[in-house]
Amino acid sequence: MDKLEYISRQLAKAESKKYEHYVISRIWHLLDDTSLKFVTQQYVSRPEGRAMTDMYFPQVKLHIEIDEGFHKKQIQQDKVRELDIINATGHEILRVDVTKPIDDINYRIADIIQVIKDKKAQNKDFKHWDIVAEQNPMTYIEKGYITLEDDCAFRTMVDTVCCFGRKYNEKGIWRGGVKHPKESDKIIWFPKLYKNGQWNNSISNDETIIHEINEDLDEAKKHITHTLTQSNIRRIVFARVKSPLGDIMYRYKGQYFLDTQSTSIENGLVWRRESEKVNTYKFTEN
Amino acid sequence: MDKLEYISRQLAKAESKKYEHYVISRIWHLLDDTSLKFVTQQYVSRPEGRAMTDMYFPQVKLHIEIDEGFHKKQIQQDKVRELDIINATGHEILRVDVTKPIDDINYRIADIIQVIKDKKAQNKDFKHWDIVAEQNPMTYIEKGYITLEDDCAFRTMVDTVCCFGRKYNEKGIWRGGVKHPKESDKIIWFPKLYKNGQWNNSISNDETIIHEINEDLDEAKKHITHTLTQSNIRRIVFARVKSPLGDIMYRYKGQYFLDTQSTSIENGLVWRRESEKVNTYKFTEN
Repeated sequence: MDKLEYISRQLAKAESKKYEHYVISRIWHLLDDTSLKFVTQQYVSRPEGRAMTDMYFPQVKLHIEIDEGFHKKQIQQDKVRELDIINATGHEILRVDVTKPIDDINYRIADIIQVIKDKKAQNKDFKHWDIVAEQNPMTYIEKGYITLEDDCAFRTMVDTVCCFGRKYNEKGIWRGGVKHPKESDKIIWFPKLYKNGQWNNSISNDETIIHEINEDLDEAKKHITHTLTQSNIRRIVFARVKSPLGDIMYRYKGQYFLDTQSTSIENGLVWRRESEKVNTYKFTEN
Repeated sequence: MDKLEYISRQLAKAESKKYEHYVISRIWHLLDDTSLKFVTQQYVSRPEGRAMTDMYFPQVKLHIEIDEGFHKKQIQQDKVRELDIINATGHEILRVDVTKPIDDINYRIADIIQVIKDKKAQNKDFKHWDIVAEQNPMTYIEKGYITLEDDCAFRTMVDTVCCFGRKYNEKGIWRGGVKHPKESDKIIWFPKLYKNGQWNNSISNDETIIHEINEDLDEAKKHITHTLTQSNIRRIVFARVKSPLGDIMYRYKGQYFLDTQSTSIENGLVWRRESEKVNTYKFTEN
């Protein structure tokens, strides 16, 4: 997928609000800067709860919200659960009131475009949007690490494991996760952080705690006992999510360790984030 | 419907081609001129046949066609028949090749925007797009006439008849047409110019001939005989069409007279256009 296709698909899918196409396409085309990435209909998690924003610029941590004047749509939690939810604590949200006349809306959009340009100019660490590099394991291997700041998500489990020192030639699929090729106390974990069959995993709004719960009591006991005896009590988490464009992705969430104190049959296995950053490794052939 | 809603609906409905949203919204927002009207997915009739263009600027008679490189979609004639098909003889078509890289597409769009601006500047008769006035009978009553150049279509039959000297307070619906309030040799006709029950009316590609055919032979004979004895042998035609946004409209097609020579059971009643222009009248209350 090149930038043209990505941008077109993002522009095309906007449809939940009456003037969404107008506002989003106007911001994008008048901004006219393909070094900036944007995402439409991005789910975000903030301390006050989950929400969807209409347009999101990850490099400058800015969201655009289209205000229609009437009540906000309730998010259907059951549909959201699979989606890619990013942590937006500290992000800025700018609003466009579409109940105003077209000229007022256009002025407001011009203001917003200026804010985006200013934020880009002020960001000394600004990196041009590179749609190929952002999903390429080599980008992170060369860099030596992945952090939450990177907004990192891979297309496949193989690409993900590739970052940690092992190259798989096959289309590898691991059920829950795979042992870290280089660090024996860790597992690369690909959880579904929502109810899925007898599993009912969840992540807290601030994304620092993951509960891994099996609703079958016997299975739960077995799984907890087994895990507590293992030496790999850390997990590098790439949650399985559906991207705003509908593709499956594995979204980096950080490194978590097993909180044995809080773990119980009721709480399940409790994983606490201990690091936003993990090291990557050059890979060796399988 | 105000301009914001109209533009938003036009931008939102583009979806038949992969990069349609991108190209159309980019042209619109970078042109950035609400004095210009545009229509997406406009069906046009030209001497060489019917086609659909992706974006149409009626005031400058310019169409944009998005070229995807592979075979053109066939138009399904049965779905097209109800649609608003405008006569595009002599109109200009500009193409955007979306198989090229994004920067090339952007340059091409910049060129097209310049062409539109030039055409607007060169048109001494250019009239600003007035979304309220264009569907208001008073606009045409004050002007004294309607011509094909006006691109005239009304929302209701009542609005249409209003232009010819009579105001109806009710939501009048007339089956086929209504007598011209001021000119006794004419009927204001609202035909469906496509197969509809036992009627199979049609209009030629150049829109100069309408065939009014009843497929029930007995009914056809009765209808032809009756019509030939009437004194109102002229028809001001407002064809019932579905607008590109899906609303029913009555589209002005000109004044036609009954060609008694060509009329037959096989041909049906044959109506030939004799004038592109008809007079309007101030109305009197019903």
